[in-house]
Amino acid sequence: MEGIKDKIRIMEDIHSENNSIAKAINKLLSNKGIFTINVMGAPGSGKTSALKQLIKALPDVKHYVIEGDIESDIDAEEIKRMGIETYQINTFGACHLDAPLIEIAVSQMGLAENGVLYIENIGNLVCPAEFNIGEHIKLLICSVTDGGDKPYKYPLAFEKADIILLNKMDLVQYLDFDEDFFMKGVRRLNKSAPVFKTSCRSGDGFEDTAAHIKSLFLKHEI
Amino acid sequence: MEGIKDKIRIMEDIHSENNSIAKAINKLLSNKGIFTINVMGAPGSGKTSALKQLIKALPDVKHYVIEGDIESDIDAEEIKRMGIETYQINTFGACHLDAPLIEIAVSQMGLAENGVLYIENIGNLVCPAEFNIGEHIKLLICSVTDGGDKPYKYPLAFEKADIILLNKMDLVQYLDFDEDFFMKGVRRLNKSAPVFKTSCRSGDGFEDTAAHIKSLFLKHEI
Repeated sequence: MEGIKDKIRIMEDIHSENNSIAKAINKLLSNKGIFTINVMGAPGSGKTSALKQLIKALPDVKHYVIEGDIESDIDAEEIKRMGIETYQINTFGACHLDAPLIEIAVSQMGLAENGVLYIENIGNLVCPAEFNIGEHIKLLICSVTDGGDKPYKYPLAFEKADIILLNKMDLVQYLDFDEDFFMKGVRRLNKSAPVFKTSCRSGDGFEDTAAHIKSLFLKHEI
Repeated sequence: MEGIKDKIRIMEDIHSENNSIAKAINKLLSNKGIFTINVMGAPGSGKTSALKQLIKALPDVKHYVIEGDIESDIDAEEIKRMGIETYQINTFGACHLDAPLIEIAVSQMGLAENGVLYIENIGNLVCPAEFNIGEHIKLLICSVTDGGDKPYKYPLAFEKADIILLNKMDLVQYLDFDEDFFMKGVRRLNKSAPVFKTSCRSGDGFEDTAAHIKSLFLKHEI
């Protein structure tokens, strides 16, 4: 029978091993000139649709995508149809991507030109925020249909985000979404991340988001 | 350095310990005549709002609620305002409820009369489905705003559900929700769970859901 201390030690080992692999991935991607974005959000928040909008909004940038799903390749197929080099990871149960999975993906992808690599994490507002996977920034996508209380209930993802999208704005007119309450919750956890209001259906907000990402990509010392 | 076999063994220990505590909780609740529902769903799918509707739809039944949240007591306060005995669990990071947490909650609650106990799990379509917490049935809430592909991407929750709510139906008219694709995905995993179309805003669908829950409660040999 393992004691609680053994369990904690094993969890610490997992995190420490993950972080050292994540650092190595980050260095490798930086050397290749690949600006890497860890895309996080709840199931159905619009992660894949947002990627499609960002890719369209930056036609002069080379894009790569790693799609993380528990099962299925629905999202990867959508991105591939845009002519984007896409690598599918299926975790078959695991609730987040980790650095060892990304290490394999990155070693198998071409990544020949410099550009932007989006890593779409498992749809989950909890666990992905705990694991670095070699990214330069974390992009958190949340949607107005999920309600304004999400920062209060899932603080770590908001705390760690470098960019936040408030998505599905085309539906806000049919909801009682309390934007002030949402923003107060966000700013309690995160003073600096820009929050872009977006709609994947209309494309609204993605030009500004893409311009911000491009400016980070260009000025990032990678 | 722990090997992968050690990690697997520890995970198996955690699951086996969890399951034996869950069995004991289930027996205790059965003896007390408390029909227990593990309420699962993604963040913002409408779990708390659905509980409020179910409680209203069954005025002649005694209700109890355990609210699981990573942080905050927003949902518990909402339920308490209805005069319902409510117990708050904050997991401070953990992405699901487990049996040891419920064991403590159940031991501290009165649960004097027979009735229905709803345990609202952490908003997460992945991990909660892996852990029994002493429940008699699992109720899965998903929303049309999250898209019809959820059964394909998060199969375990759909496979294990005894009842499925397809929620936020008041918004379906503004979406491209593919109900046939959704139902095909559900039935590939789960042949028998009834699927109720609901709207927490209008209350539509909750009378039927509540009647079904009441029939299970009454016929359940507890």
